[in-house]
Amino acid sequence: MPIEPVLNRIDAELPQSVERLKALLRIPSISTDPAYAADCDKAADWLVEDLRTIGFSVEKRATPGHPMVVAHSDGPGPHVLFYGHYDVQPVDPLELWDRDPFEPELEDTPKGRVIRGRGASDDKGQLMTFVEACRAWKAETGALPARVTIFFEGEEESGSPSLVPFMKENAAELASDIALICDTGLFGDATPGIVTMLRGLLGEEIVITGPSKDLHSGMYGGPAMNPIRVLAKIIAGLHDAQGRVTVPGFYDGVPELPDAIRAQWEALNFDAAAFLGEVGLSDPAGETDRSPLEMIWSRPTCEINGIKGGYTGEGFKTVLPSTASAKISFRLVGTQDPLKIRESFRAQVRAMLPPDCDVTFHDHGASAASQMAIDHPAFEKARKALSDEWPNPAAYVGSGGSIPVAGHFKRIVGTDAMLIGFAKDDDAIHSPNEKYDLESFHKGIRSWARILAALAE
Amino acid sequence: MPIEPVLNRIDAELPQSVERLKALLRIPSISTDPAYAADCDKAADWLVEDLRTIGFSVEKRATPGHPMVVAHSDGPGPHVLFYGHYDVQPVDPLELWDRDPFEPELEDTPKGRVIRGRGASDDKGQLMTFVEACRAWKAETGALPARVTIFFEGEEESGSPSLVPFMKENAAELASDIALICDTGLFGDATPGIVTMLRGLLGEEIVITGPSKDLHSGMYGGPAMNPIRVLAKIIAGLHDAQGRVTVPGFYDGVPELPDAIRAQWEALNFDAAAFLGEVGLSDPAGETDRSPLEMIWSRPTCEINGIKGGYTGEGFKTVLPSTASAKISFRLVGTQDPLKIRESFRAQVRAMLPPDCDVTFHDHGASAASQMAIDHPAFEKARKALSDEWPNPAAYVGSGGSIPVAGHFKRIVGTDAMLIGFAKDDDAIHSPNEKYDLESFHKGIRSWARILAALAE
Repeated sequence: MPIEPVLNRIDAELPQSVERLKALLRIPSISTDPAYAADCDKAADWLVEDLRTIGFSVEKRATPGHPMVVAHSDGPGPHVLFYGHYDVQPVDPLELWDRDPFEPELEDTPKGRVIRGRGASDDKGQLMTFVEACRAWKAETGALPARVTIFFEGEEESGSPSLVPFMKENAAELASDIALICDTGLFGDATPGIVTMLRGLLGEEIVITGPSKDLHSGMYGGPAMNPIRVLAKIIAGLHDAQGRVTVPGFYDGVPELPDAIRAQWEALNFDAAAFLGEVGLSDPAGETDRSPLEMIWSRPTCEINGIKGGYTGEGFKTVLPSTASAKISFRLVGTQDPLKIRESFRAQVRAMLPPDCDVTFHDHGASAASQMAIDHPAFEKARKALSDEWPNPAAYVGSGGSIPVAGHFKRIVGTDAMLIGFAKDDDAIHSPNEKYDLESFHKGIRSWARILAALAE
Repeated sequence: MPIEPVLNRIDAELPQSVERLKALLRIPSISTDPAYAADCDKAADWLVEDLRTIGFSVEKRATPGHPMVVAHSDGPGPHVLFYGHYDVQPVDPLELWDRDPFEPELEDTPKGRVIRGRGASDDKGQLMTFVEACRAWKAETGALPARVTIFFEGEEESGSPSLVPFMKENAAELASDIALICDTGLFGDATPGIVTMLRGLLGEEIVITGPSKDLHSGMYGGPAMNPIRVLAKIIAGLHDAQGRVTVPGFYDGVPELPDAIRAQWEALNFDAAAFLGEVGLSDPAGETDRSPLEMIWSRPTCEINGIKGGYTGEGFKTVLPSTASAKISFRLVGTQDPLKIRESFRAQVRAMLPPDCDVTFHDHGASAASQMAIDHPAFEKARKALSDEWPNPAAYVGSGGSIPVAGHFKRIVGTDAMLIGFAKDDDAIHSPNEKYDLESFHKGIRSWARILAALAE
């Protein structure tokens, strides 16, 4: 089956593809905030309807949380499954957005045309690259080149509580020859990447309590324990002077990079100065004996994602607060055991509590790191297809993010996963003014059209 | 002039006095929040109107911030000035209040009847004790026993930015034989206190910035500096293992307690266990070599009053924030110089900044500590008057709070100040469910009626 007519149709119908993406982006499907539950449902309905028009047999499937969307289409070749998520991150601080996050629009920037809005890159824009590729194949040839299952979830940005139970219950239906996941980025503007290793993620929230109520710091300052001070000391103690995480046993299962991979990464000539300079930084802040690429792709980390305590409004209030809290996440690699690290972290925090202070822990998910099966034949086929589309050949790369679903496909469904995506470092995912380059969207659709053909060969 | 008829009238008219206080408490005069500026103005108007009905010559006086209220009444004896503040603290966290903070009501509690609402104790209830004492004197005898000036401000809870300029401009009008300040507490339930030393207050807000925007902790966690980590390290470094403040030069001008005062304080048999137990604590958390009473009354402190950074809403967000901030206050004693300490603190913070991080400082006021002139004859007269009213004799005590206006009266107007108040440690000032004991209010009014008579003798 010649690919050119399909690619030409993708080019010709790009404006309509953009309009469909904008329609999906207008739905504020913020999964972590219960106030947006109906919007998550609406986004699932939108996808069901859209996939039905392409010719998929599609259903919205209920879970205890937000629904899944599962769609099937027969085809002649191998069976491929595509995964994406239709939920998005919260939008605060809203005042830093230059436009309504849920009124997406095309914008011209010095670096080219972009689609601006929450979810444009993570992950609605990315998942629609695959949907549009399928639409073009069907419209041009009347069929897909392979048997395709599409699987969208709506809880990826809130720890995916329903994902594992759903995959276990529907393992047979979700089994395929290869799982395609589109939630990662390009390696460079002209260089697509196929991810070979993913960091795991452990999320913990700690709440320190001291006095039974907020106190006046004039009356109690001195003899009364201040939970913010306790929390600051705990956080300050999580890294040593070399930037290593101090949680006992944290580095158990952290492998050294194989020489072959190290050589390959060095050949990528990663521009750390440009990567950091893009966000106003110049000095790599992680482990002092590691390269920036190792810090992101192959080393575990501990980050403080949020902290609050006491009076944080306008002006000043001399309060000595009764409570202070922080959200802390660990990125994991190799065979680090998230549950063991959680216990060790909690023990470390408890050991640092002074008299009169208590701690409560809230579990925000735990997933181990994943290694991809790059000897699976699909990887080399996809690499060639991507290299045909983009100026530079595709690279096998690591990824700092945590995409637990890749591991779930392997462990629960028995299918290897391949992660290919078209996001850019400056897409501002999880931040104000998120965008997706129109080129990412356009060439992303073309890339999937090519990959589908390549996998079917 | 016999005092008994005046006291009897105070007893008989207590219900009406409570209703007037409730009317004032219903006005949400939160000075630190610009949204309540009109309410601050309304509270000033209410006081002007109320003082006029008593017979004062009274004016609302404009400032660049919230207005002052100044009232005069002639009298035969010495000239006394009374100071209080009609503004109140913010009410958050609102969900911890058992009632609307601005719908005050009498409540029966295991410890007796209280008036519940924001400002009931700090400072509307306290300032109305003096107003009601004046009302009773005028109603019963047609005159006040002394010449009285009343001076209310509306910015005490937000750093009093207009106070010093106003006092300088109106120094002659505000001059008197003694300034009475009612913004402090009883020493014990049955023991009134006259404050002989007050801590000063330095308020600083620090804002740490790192990346130019919020980042995804998966993509940047490791090489990118996290401002929350930097802030935690700075805060954790502000105290050493002995609980001493580490800011260089901080203890310059901190006097050791004179033996006479130490002996007097020891004789008070301060119950530290009960003081801390009241708020769910058991272990004095300040300098390891100081008694709890010293920690509150005569030692300087550093407290963190608020901290925020990153995502603090429901759920979890793996953000690496571009900024983190904290509100920090220092209580000062002796001749500690607040401006020198500010510079030293700022230098210490700057020295702890890693590459790629910047800091912005916001000044939230600076006032030195004050020593009262207890050899002024008014002190002994007031002590005797208070001892007549309360079960136990009045005590000369220290105070952990900072009431800069006392020092201003001395330095700007040339008048010694005497601090007498009827608040209790469990009044929850600056906290949810603030209250003022009905007994504090009632015996407070009676106390001022007696003190006015005593000063006139």
